[in-house]
Amino acid sequence: MVIVRHEANKVYAKVVEANGVVTTAGIIPSDLSRDAKGQTAEVLAEIDRLLALCGTNKSRITSASIWLNDIRHREAMNEVWIDWVGGEANAPVRACVEAKLVDPRMLVEIQVIAVK
Amino acid sequence: MVIVRHEANKVYAKVVEANGVVTTAGIIPSDLSRDAKGQTAEVLAEIDRLLALCGTNKSRITSASIWLNDIRHREAMNEVWIDWVGGEANAPVRACVEAKLVDPRMLVEIQVIAVK
Amino acid sequence: MVIVRHEANKVYAKVVEANGVVTTAGIIPSDLSRDAKGQTAEVLAEIDRLLALCGTNKSRITSASIWLNDIRHREAMNEVWIDWVGGEANAPVRACVEAKLVDPRMLVEIQVIAVK
Repeated sequence: MVIVRHEANKVYAKVVEANGVVTTAGIIPSDLSRDAKGQTAEVLAEIDRLLALCGTNKSRITSASIWLNDIRHREAMNEVWIDWVGGEANAPVRACVEAKLVDPRMLVEIQVIAVK
Repeated sequence: MVIVRHEANKVYAKVVEANGVVTTAGIIPSDLSRDAKGQTAEVLAEIDRLLALCGTNKSRITSASIWLNDIRHREAMNEVWIDWVGGEANAPVRACVEAKLVDPRMLVEIQVIAVK
Repeated sequence: MVIVRHEANKVYAKVVEANGVVTTAGIIPSDLSRDAKGQTAEVLAEIDRLLALCGTNKSRITSASIWLNDIRHREAMNEVWIDWVGGEANAPVRACVEAKLVDPRMLVEIQVIAVK
């Protein structure tokens, strides 16, 4: 089984492919001045970019994991999420829980698994 | 690779199949008046239902993720879990950590991956 | 699809194989007197052992999940992690968040997915 690692450094790869399954890292925002909606939008745009690197896209996501540094950001995140997913024909399974992230100003982290 | 999404809405699907792998959403209880054992039992019954939708069952689970809103509920959850799993021939890998869930009265959330 | 469960008890298996994919449990340290670096080293040695049981190794890991009981242990964990991973050619995707673990003296839990 061939493994393809994209944008890897010594700590982690941004996205990995193996056997037709594409897994992103837990993607975090870089602009920490934005609110939960803005940070979610940045993270989802980065996920779009990473899936495209692997020749797949958001309509092929099977599973998503979402961590919020405060579960009360769920509604704001969901607004952006629902628009991005684009309808029930694309909806993955999802788990969304609260967790402290690397920096207290980081409000959201998202990881997805897609197939090609 | 064909993706089959069951009981999807615009936010998430309850269970998704792709390439013989079945992944449930993070399943949460609906009756929040119950204790940790009762909520675990409800969640596991829902997982049974979702796996059956995909033509598989709990003896085919490979991996489980469990979030408890208080890690001290682990023993109560485990009592119900052990009975449900039904012995080491069925036991999946598991990770169980504490996390705040969507509602403070939600004590447990469980996600599983199974094969067909 | 054949499932192989290694070192299973009635609660969980240490590592499970199915269709060429190897998933470990969330591995926790047993020597809780050690610091974050020491606990990380113990966990990663156990992961090496479990992957070997399945005929694979750390160069074949595609995804890792890391929970720290205090996110401030991230740097100490990363020092050991980077050395263990052995360079970007091996780097998996990764998600690392804070979560209370089973025992307050447990500082780190790591779960990996590898392919054969």
